[in-house]
This record gives sequence, C-alpha cells and structure tokens, in this order.
Amino acid sequence: MTTPRTTTTQVGIVGGGPAGLMLSHLLARRGVDSVVVDHRSRLEIEHTVRAGILEADSVRLLADTGVSDRVLREGDQHHGTYFAFGGELHHIDFQELAGASVWLYPQTEVFIDLANAREAAGADVRFGVSGTTVHDITSRQPSIRFTDADGTEHEVRCRYLVGADGSHSMCRHEIPATDIRQYRKEYPFAWFGILCQAPKSAPELIYNHSERGFALISQRTDTMQRMYFQCDPDEDVDAWSDDRIWSELQARVGLNGCELKEGPITDRAVLRFRSNVVEPMRYGSMLLAGDAAHTVPPTGAKGLNLALADVRVLAEVLDQALTKNDDDVLDDYSHRALDRVWRSQHFSYWMTSMLHRPPNADDFDLRRQVGELRSVVRSTAGSTFLAEGYTGWPSA
Amino acid sequence: MTTPRTTTTQVGIVGGGPAGLMLSHLLARRGVDSVVVDHRSRLEIEHTVRAGILEADSVRLLADTGVSDRVLREGDQHHGTYFAFGGELHHIDFQELAGASVWLYPQTEVFIDLANAREAAGADVRFGVSGTTVHDITSRQPSIRFTDADGTEHEVRCRYLVGADGSHSMCRHEIPATDIRQYRKEYPFAWFGILCQAPKSAPELIYNHSERGFALISQRTDTMQRMYFQCDPDEDVDAWSDDRIWSELQARVGLNGCELKEGPITDRAVLRFRSNVVEPMRYGSMLLAGDAAHTVPPTGAKGLNLALADVRVLAEVLDQALTKNDDDVLDDYSHRALDRVWRSQHFSYWMTSMLHRPPNADDFDLRRQVGELRSVVRSTAGSTFLAEGYTGWPSA
Repeated sequence: MTTPRTTTTQVGIVGGGPAGLMLSHLLARRGVDSVVVDHRSRLEIEHTVRAGILEADSVRLLADTGVSDRVLREGDQHHGTYFAFGGELHHIDFQELAGASVWLYPQTEVFIDLANAREAAGADVRFGVSGTTVHDITSRQPSIRFTDADGTEHEVRCRYLVGADGSHSMCRHEIPATDIRQYRKEYPFAWFGILCQAPKSAPELIYNHSERGFALISQRTDTMQRMYFQCDPDEDVDAWSDDRIWSELQARVGLNGCELKEGPITDRAVLRFRSNVVEPMRYGSMLLAGDAAHTVPPTGAKGLNLALADVRVLAEVLDQALTKNDDDVLDDYSHRALDRVWRSQHFSYWMTSMLHRPPNADDFDLRRQVGELRSVVRSTAGSTFLAEGYTGWPSA
Repeated sequence: MTTPRTTTTQVGIVGGGPAGLMLSHLLARRGVDSVVVDHRSRLEIEHTVRAGILEADSVRLLADTGVSDRVLREGDQHHGTYFAFGGELHHIDFQELAGASVWLYPQTEVFIDLANAREAAGADVRFGVSGTTVHDITSRQPSIRFTDADGTEHEVRCRYLVGADGSHSMCRHEIPATDIRQYRKEYPFAWFGILCQAPKSAPELIYNHSERGFALISQRTDTMQRMYFQCDPDEDVDAWSDDRIWSELQARVGLNGCELKEGPITDRAVLRFRSNVVEPMRYGSMLLAGDAAHTVPPTGAKGLNLALADVRVLAEVLDQALTKNDDDVLDDYSHRALDRVWRSQHFSYWMTSMLHRPPNADDFDLRRQVGELRSVVRSTAGSTFLAEGYTGWPSA
C-alpha cells in the first residue's frame, strides 16, 4: 500500500457545490484555510439543472463578499410573484410588502461564479476525485482520503471537517445512528419539470392552483423557460409527448385565465418531494451543511438559500472555534441553523399544501385552499407574511 | 284531519337559536315580519354548553342593533390571546395588531339576550313545538307546519322560508340531493371539554401545542372555567376521572411552563370535529343560515360568528327581495356568505392543523409545527394575519 500524499489545512470540506465552495470562500475571507474535494467534475455540476430563485440575503452574500456581481447584472430581479387560483391572477409585490426582492439566477450560475472566484483566489479545490472517505471524525485531527484523476492517493488532514456533500451525504452516513436524529417526510407529490425553447409567458413566476393540480411557470432566459406541473411520484416521463405536456400545462393555467407561449421541450424529468432534517448538525469534529443536513420540497425555492444560510453561520462559528481553540462553540451552529431549517421546512410545506391538489382530494379541500389563497392575497398582513418567508427571514 | 291554525308572515324561520332569532330581530328593524319556530324549549337552549368567543363585529351587531349591551358590561373583552409551544408562552395582541378585540361571552348568553329582546318586542317566536315540516319550498308561498305544546296544529304561510335549524337541519334535508352540493371533511381529532369550578388560570385563552397533543385553556367566569384537550374521537368519557383529566391537562401546559388552577369538574364531554358546507345556500324560496348550511371545527371559534355574519347579509338580501319583489337578488346571499364561509373553513383548518398533534404524527410534524408557530409569533405580519382572522374579517 502506497502512502498517500498529505495536505494539511484547517477545514476539510467534502462537497464542491455552492454550499462547500461558499464556505471555503467565506473562511478564506476570515483567514481560515480549507481544502474542498468533490467526486464530480466541474462540467458535471455545471450541467445539472437546479433551482433558480435566490433570496435577497443570498444575493447580498454573493455580491458583498465579492464572489460576483454577475447575479446583479445578469440575474433577473423579481419584485414579486403571481398567484393564480379560482379563475383569477393576483400579484404579490415583495418589494412593497417586505422591502425585498428575489433574483432569478440558476444554481448552476451560482456554482460557476463560486468556482471561478475560488480558482482566481488560488484555493485548493479538487474536482473529479474518487473513493472519498473520512476518518477520525471525533478526534482533533480528522482527515479526508481520496484518489485523484491521475490515480494518486491523497490525505487531507484538518482540524474540522465539513460534510457539504448533498442529500446522499457520505459524511452523514459516517455518524452512528445512535448519535443523530433523522426526521423525514415523504410528500405524495412530485413535479414534472421541463426546459423549453420559448419566450417568457410572464415577467415573474406564476404559482398556479387548479383542480387539475399545481403548476409553476418559471423562467430562465429570454428564450429558455422552466415550467413544472404536479404529477404522481411514479409518473412515467416517456408517457408524455410535447403535445401532451403543453396541453396539460395550458389546461391548468387556462382555468385561471392565463396562456403560455409554447416551444420545443429540451429537458424533462420527474422531481420527487422529500423533507429530511438531521439533528444535531455536528458530530465530533465534523459538521454538516446544506442538503447533507436537510432537504426541502422545491415549492418555495428554499434549498439553495438554506444551504447558503447554513454556511454563513458555519464560517463564523468555525472561525470562533479555531480562534478560541474551543470545540464547544460549534454547538451554536446547530442551534442557529436549525431554527431557520424548521421554519423553512414549514414554509416549504405551507407553499406545497396551499397549492397542490392532495391525493384523493375532494372538492372540500380544493375550495378550502381557494379560501386560504383568498385570505392571503386580500390581506396585506397575509401577503406580507408570505413575502417575508419567500424573500427570506433575517439571518440568525 | 283538522285544519291547522294559519298565520301569515313575510319570512318563516325554522330554528330559534342565535341565527334564527338574530335574523328575526334584524328583519324587524327593517320592517319585515317574521315567525320563528323551534322544537326545543327556551330552557333547553339556555342549558346547552356552547362556544364562548365573539368576534368584534358580532359584538358590534349585538350592541348596535339594540339587542343588549350586556355583552359589553358582562362579557370579558380579550385584547389578545396566548400561544404556548416549544417551552415558551407568547402573547398575540389583537388590539395592537388588528385594532380589534374579541369578547368572551358564551353563546347561551347571546341566546338569552336575543330571546329577551324578541319577547320584549312582541315578536312571534314559538319554542317547544313538535312535528315541524316545511312545504312548497319552491313556490312563492312556502309554509311551515307544526304542533304546539297544547296539541294545536299550526301553519305559517310566508313569502320566504329560512332554515336556521342547526347542523342536523330538517330544512336542508328537504332539498333534493341533485340540487345542492355538500362538502364534508371529517377531522381525525376531537376535544375532551370540561367545565370546572376554579379560578382563572390565565386572563385570556391559551392555545397550547405540545407533543402530548393540543390543549385550550379558556374561561367562563371568575369561578367557572372551560378547558379542552385533544383526544381520540372515540374517547370514552367515563374512563376519565377528575384526577386523570387534571394530570393530562397539567402535563400538556406544563411542557410550556404553564400551570393550571384546579377544581371540581362539573361537566365533561367529547366534541367531535366536522366540517360541512352546503352550496348554494338557497333553494327556491328557502334559504339556509348558520350551522344548517355549514359547520366548522371549534378551533378558532368561528361557528357562532359565521352564523351571525350569515344573517346580517341574509336580512339585507331578504329585505331587498321583498321590496323589489325579485327572487333573483337572493342569489347574492350565497355568493357573499360563501366567500366568508370558505375563508372561515380554512381559518379553522389552519388553527386546527397548526396546533393539534396529527394521528401517527412523527417528530417531523411536531417540529415543523413549532417552526410554523415560531414564524407566526415572531413576525408582525404573521401575527397580524392570525389576529385579523381571529377577530373577524370585515363583512362582505
């Protein structure tokens, strides 16, 4: 057995998605060294279609910490959103109600900005590695081992380890089941998501409630659009021709008087809904962040925003722990992050249950949902409460 | 067969509870004659323990229309309410948030005030009748037939007929199933309700969330209190001694740092939850109001308030129909009343689902609920949205 090539750093980060890269970036700004490893290539991550809505504070974090001002230049600032239900279209003005906007800026663009910024700063980020394992996670010197693309074995020795390695997190699986609690919820919903070559059908997102089920009309660029409609979790993607997809989407929004601009569909996939929360988010010298610690249903677009909120707190707490040489301050991370996590779980659940047709729904449920939507849009307080949650609560 | 003694009036009202009596009262103020019949005696209605929270507009309706100012003198004005959850107690200040209060004033007192007012005005209200039936409800001269306590048969001929005869409404059952839609929801919850001889445990209601299930700490007078705790719909009342009841109540509020003042329990019953809505609320010359048209779960205390909101609109619409001699204006009643009904159905559902432990609840649900409750109490907008719904939306 060969001796691995050893690197020593303060924080070893497994996962080079937006959470891992942003953490590495924020730590660097505090003078803390880190190494990031990811089994995926840059190209692979750049080509994964993901969520596209950034909360006001997420945008501020990107801009204020000098990652990129591309989000401000090329992202699409949405001052509000539309709710369509009961035959009517209502606008919720986030800016007027909550004094904040959201930005339509796909997660892959956030990744590209972060990856470029880390590269420009000469950060140690290793994409495309294989066989990643973590070791001695309860000790004061945990490590990450992996093999690089050339077949060379490496070991990264660090003071703290962070698992930012997504919903199937290898790091999380290293924690003994007796030392962690996992909270799960399976939703009886899924989204049929498409990318299509078409002009925008609306200037901002449309959350569309109908007796045929939920639909979300979203955008990407002037010529590419992203749309979703509620489907069965076991829906067969191949059973849906372009014509059938457009017909279903048009029927759902048509009930509320909307009409979509159609075009060729270039990507289609079924997205299942799952909620997952791990408590605490620390085990020994290892901390979990983003999807590795929690996932939310896509309604409400909280996933990426929650990951960025996590690492904002985590960078601060890791810096303190290193400076004070005191592990106990790490517990603060769990407390502060989980408060937001559970509020976001509820926000995502709320948006989901308010807008989706429940399985075996009878007309009572559908009319009650319209009753709720009416109460929300007619009340300044109700609309503001929604706008606050959507644009993001203040950081903890 | 004897010929019944005939009375002619403009509006025949089946049901002498608060909805029927208030309608008769409001019609009288508009110069419209009515006759009210009810199979129950006054005493029977006065001794039914019912809800106790009146919305601001319900109180205004009682006071402004000269029914009684007793609600203002003897009712207990609550400027807000308490929410207890996650080990903490939070106050929601209705007055500060929504500029309105609610009044703790039991439904039986509202009934007594209305019955006294109608009696003082010399109104034709017949309690304790039997064998009530309605006839020719699609014609321009429907009628009510019944037998009075002396065995005399009566017929009330009227231009319009109103079914305000409660959740088991005989009037509603006269409508052919093909001409009406009924929306129903069974909730998997029930309340174990008690009346006890004890001092107040809190100056205002406490809505208490806990992993043991919901509890509601309410009041009646300085020496009588009303409390509830979530139980199984099939709960056996006899299986609960005073000690067991107090122990369960104390355990639930104790988790949030509250303690109850105990005393002898004088009344105990299981209240099942049901939602029911009938559409439309008109069939020919007959209109439905209050529980005859819709029932809500007790969380949020909307039942009586919704009945009073119904008859406020109904009195106006009946007056118009009679004045213009135009049945078509009656359809306006359904549209206006149902808008509030569905919003109230949702409000009741929201309060219920936010606070009750769902059957087979896992810790995910309980933590998500705490996440929601935190979002509501920490946000001025969220608290205001709740306060608006609780104190009552403006009338349609």
